[in-house]
Amino acid sequence: MKLLEERILRDGEVKSGEILKVDRFLNHQMDPTLFYAMAEEWKRLYDGCGVNKLLTIEASGIGIACVAGLVFGVPVVFAKKSKSLNVSDDVYTAEVVSFTHGGTNTVQVSREYLHPEDRILIIDDFLASGAALEGLIAIVEQAGATVVGAGIAIEKAFQPGGARIRAKGVRVESLARIASMDPMTFAD
Amino acid sequence: MKLLEERILRDGEVKSGEILKVDRFLNHQMDPTLFYAMAEEWKRLYDGCGVNKLLTIEASGIGIACVAGLVFGVPVVFAKKSKSLNVSDDVYTAEVVSFTHGGTNTVQVSREYLHPEDRILIIDDFLASGAALEGLIAIVEQAGATVVGAGIAIEKAFQPGGARIRAKGVRVESLARIASMDPMTFAD
Repeated sequence: MKLLEERILRDGEVKSGEILKVDRFLNHQMDPTLFYAMAEEWKRLYDGCGVNKLLTIEASGIGIACVAGLVFGVPVVFAKKSKSLNVSDDVYTAEVVSFTHGGTNTVQVSREYLHPEDRILIIDDFLASGAALEGLIAIVEQAGATVVGAGIAIEKAFQPGGARIRAKGVRVESLARIASMDPMTFAD
Repeated sequence: MKLLEERILRDGEVKSGEILKVDRFLNHQMDPTLFYAMAEEWKRLYDGCGVNKLLTIEASGIGIACVAGLVFGVPVVFAKKSKSLNVSDDVYTAEVVSFTHGGTNTVQVSREYLHPEDRILIIDDFLASGAALEGLIAIVEQAGATVVGAGIAIEKAFQPGGARIRAKGVRVESLARIASMDPMTFAD
């Protein structure tokens, strides 16, 4: 998606350790008008797929997913992160190792909000190692619901997550796929 | 706001310890169409006030604020929570005691995203003790920016936060003001 690639080139900042900082428009300051355009693109890509719910993960996925929920006209559920394993029976859980922070989080979603008949589109800001997305897929599978696919803002295509998850047969639509960060180049 | 009050009556759940659970539509599963109607109401209330940026706090404020940013046509910044005091020089910080969890968080916003000329509307899902809102106000003041007011979804009007903050001269517009939770009644 040209608009997002241009924004990354203009406002993104590459930090040491393969970190791409997009604080200016995506995950600290957020540009809701850009999010709306991104949501329209996911809507176009997943048109006719019967998506009835979006699933994301706190914190920075929430804004994008909420605007997407508006465009899709469906509710949005966000998985909560918790450091503790002390979770109750009424939640689905998965373990997720953070690429950025190194630590492990337990992510959880109340059983009340995912059902076998649900057709879920997973929304997130980044796809890199794939750990967060795999955690969300595991949660949807625990509920017996269907993963229609994933809508990702920025994929680091030079990391293995995207290829591994697509190889499992999950449809992944990333609006900007970064082939290299030095210099910044995009893959189709 | 009638729509939100009706939704609280229908889908809210009162737990022990004066906890109102609104997981079904506000802070775990989210209803973006409701958020849009709420945003339009804040837009009407703060029309002509020159709001050029919204500020909220992770995690559950982000979805509401992002949809509101779309309606206002302005960027949204969310304050990040951190357990540690080990923050860098390039952020504004405030200490916030959580009513729900008891613990203290340091909340922080990068200096890059708040400026003296900014006219900030603070958005949050709940106002009860007032700690989170006061933390966000302190951050805006550190930046030398103007707090135009606050747009709150649900105010527990039987707790002291709202009255204390209004007494300081801050405009607070809460879309549902709960006078009592047993039985659930609303104040104007």
